[in-house]
Amino acid sequence: MKKNLWAIKGNLVWAERIGEMSTLPGGYILMEGEGIKGISAELPEEYAGNVEDYGDKIITPSFSDLHLHAPQYPMLGLGMDLQLLDWLDNYAFPTEARFEEDEFARKTYKKLASELIKRGTTRVCIFSSLHRSATNILMDELEAAGVTGYAGKVNMDRNGGINLQETTEESIDETIRWVEENSGRKLVKPMLTPRFIPSCTDELMEGLERIAAEHSELPVQSHLSENLDEIAWVKELHPDCTHYYQAYEKYGLWKPGTIMAHCVYCDEKERKAMKDAGVWAIHCPDSNTNIASGIAPVRIMLQEGVKVAMGSDIAGGAKLSMPDSATEAIRASKLRWLSSGKKEDFLTVAEAFYLITGAGQEYFGAKPGFGVGDKLHAVVLDDSNLAYNPAITLTERLERILYLFDTSSVKAVYSEGVRRV
Amino acid sequence: MKKNLWAIKGNLVWAERIGEMSTLPGGYILMEGEGIKGISAELPEEYAGNVEDYGDKIITPSFSDLHLHAPQYPMLGLGMDLQLLDWLDNYAFPTEARFEEDEFARKTYKKLASELIKRGTTRVCIFSSLHRSATNILMDELEAAGVTGYAGKVNMDRNGGINLQETTEESIDETIRWVEENSGRKLVKPMLTPRFIPSCTDELMEGLERIAAEHSELPVQSHLSENLDEIAWVKELHPDCTHYYQAYEKYGLWKPGTIMAHCVYCDEKERKAMKDAGVWAIHCPDSNTNIASGIAPVRIMLQEGVKVAMGSDIAGGAKLSMPDSATEAIRASKLRWLSSGKKEDFLTVAEAFYLITGAGQEYFGAKPGFGVGDKLHAVVLDDSNLAYNPAITLTERLERILYLFDTSSVKAVYSEGVRRV
Repeated sequence: MKKNLWAIKGNLVWAERIGEMSTLPGGYILMEGEGIKGISAELPEEYAGNVEDYGDKIITPSFSDLHLHAPQYPMLGLGMDLQLLDWLDNYAFPTEARFEEDEFARKTYKKLASELIKRGTTRVCIFSSLHRSATNILMDELEAAGVTGYAGKVNMDRNGGINLQETTEESIDETIRWVEENSGRKLVKPMLTPRFIPSCTDELMEGLERIAAEHSELPVQSHLSENLDEIAWVKELHPDCTHYYQAYEKYGLWKPGTIMAHCVYCDEKERKAMKDAGVWAIHCPDSNTNIASGIAPVRIMLQEGVKVAMGSDIAGGAKLSMPDSATEAIRASKLRWLSSGKKEDFLTVAEAFYLITGAGQEYFGAKPGFGVGDKLHAVVLDDSNLAYNPAITLTERLERILYLFDTSSVKAVYSEGVRRV
Repeated sequence: MKKNLWAIKGNLVWAERIGEMSTLPGGYILMEGEGIKGISAELPEEYAGNVEDYGDKIITPSFSDLHLHAPQYPMLGLGMDLQLLDWLDNYAFPTEARFEEDEFARKTYKKLASELIKRGTTRVCIFSSLHRSATNILMDELEAAGVTGYAGKVNMDRNGGINLQETTEESIDETIRWVEENSGRKLVKPMLTPRFIPSCTDELMEGLERIAAEHSELPVQSHLSENLDEIAWVKELHPDCTHYYQAYEKYGLWKPGTIMAHCVYCDEKERKAMKDAGVWAIHCPDSNTNIASGIAPVRIMLQEGVKVAMGSDIAGGAKLSMPDSATEAIRASKLRWLSSGKKEDFLTVAEAFYLITGAGQEYFGAKPGFGVGDKLHAVVLDDSNLAYNPAITLTERLERILYLFDTSSVKAVYSEGVRRV
């Protein structure tokens, strides 16, 4: 089927491993249908006539956002003067409670999905609210826009806000029903999502353990060791646990592919438990600073072999674009480098680039970079409007566009082999 | 002259004092020619027919950027993995050296001026390079775009890069010639600009002292106590000074209206010296983090009564938009709050908003806010493309647009009473 062969051309930049950056100036990504056949400096004859030529623009793998709260999108950039508990009570919980209305959910999630894909984010692990119907709407809208990955109906049967809490039974029943009604989805799949330990009674956790055992295909997402008050609270709720993570482990949710957002205060034992179990840490630097949680030890986790990817964590984070998260990660790491007496190295641009591209590809089972056989997830970046600088190299151009990124930087986005922007 | 009366209408938000925010929803700014006659909830009859109605948009005073390096604009967002001295040698100095060419300067400064005004920055204190001709081009281009304030031909007769150093005599002679040839400018005026103490020999500083004495209208800008290595270096160069600032003071440059960028490590005595002399601290949080200088004690300076305004400090800073600088200031202050054991309060949105609007107005002799008799400097902000949120107040809308700012947020910009965007 020759007509299934096509290619895109541009300056290719990608990261196969953390800290490495590969380039192919003026290269081709060769495609068959939705899948990558390879990359090449020359165009094979059989692709002639089917090339989308992006000229001097830069083509990289698209971005992955592995932690964000969809129902907090209406409050993005709001309430930043409040501390965590006041922020939850005054902003997060009342906003999430509105997603009882399907119409509000539809309007909000259509916009969110559109803003994600416009920024080159094609893969997510995303929290919904506790509402099953709104969660299905979120999954519909993400799929319609071309955003793939996992979404989670949130479980919370204690310590919620007004109009934002389930009974234990409702939480379990609704989750089972939701998992079953979404079992056929291809692009955005369900993920178990206990909000965090203080939101879930032991009975609810036991229910989630049973669901996880029956549905081994369901990955798990939650929060871990985000701030010191939260850690003390978990310790009160689970006095048998010396470490926060054990409260997930004892219900069978600490397993390969489980993702844990924040990990600001994971100590050596908790980090080793992550590595040993194949649990991923999701670094959310913008949120960790905005909510004054602290600066996560990303460099140490990477050195110890913990899997790390990144999340915007809107609306604790105020930046939806993953390049902004990448540069915030670098900024935060520089302050940690400074406060460590320059012992703990800061993150480099190449490392942060990997964390928003290759790390997510790996989480979703694709090869970091442009892997043969993988469906194309790519973003075409346009830096032609930036300052004139004749001396700049291709990797410097990538660095600059990460630092100066806005939506006008994105010329095209491919998701699952299809151009969506 | 009735035809000189006009008004703009919108949701007015301004800050007259740090920490306060005033609003007038659906209000009018009444104008006569280029000057503000007042603000009003109703339109007086004589203005009818001459109203620019911005509907539901937000109108605030425009932004001031009191520290940035114009010739570093081509390297904005580059070299961020390097530490200060390597960054200077590999990026900053070679880039600045290119401004020997007028054509390169013209192209770069035309673009920079356009990008500043598009972002609502209408007032600057800006470093040029050491080149007199390029500095004049910078002043021309700023004025042509509607950016006002002060620009400085840099003085540096030691410790420069290849092709980026003057002799002492050249530096003094060129400065005198430059001051004289720009004495007639109205919108962008000259400012004495010794790069920093390590760049200027004692003989050069004596020369600048003489120029300052002859031209009392010239304000002074430089760098102060940005990082610990630099402070140690200044101490070596001026063993008679217990404090960095004294190396400016002994040459008569420490005086009312002098502005000092960074002030990350100013101790109590140095801060008191600023307050007593009427010297302003220019806070540059993005740069201080990118170059890993540290987090300046802004809260303490404000409490002690030191005058503070803000700078993007491109290209140590990577963000040209002042709202980005404002939110970076808040982020950095939260990490300082955390590391102080929550003793040193973080900056609020209202405070950061004042620092990028009212503080600059005060520096340039205007009344913070929309002062009667002042020429109108204002920006019209458009948040209609942000997420649907029916519950949001006007001050929350301002907060959100500061956090989520990009160039599409700016609908119109007025400078010196004239619409420029």
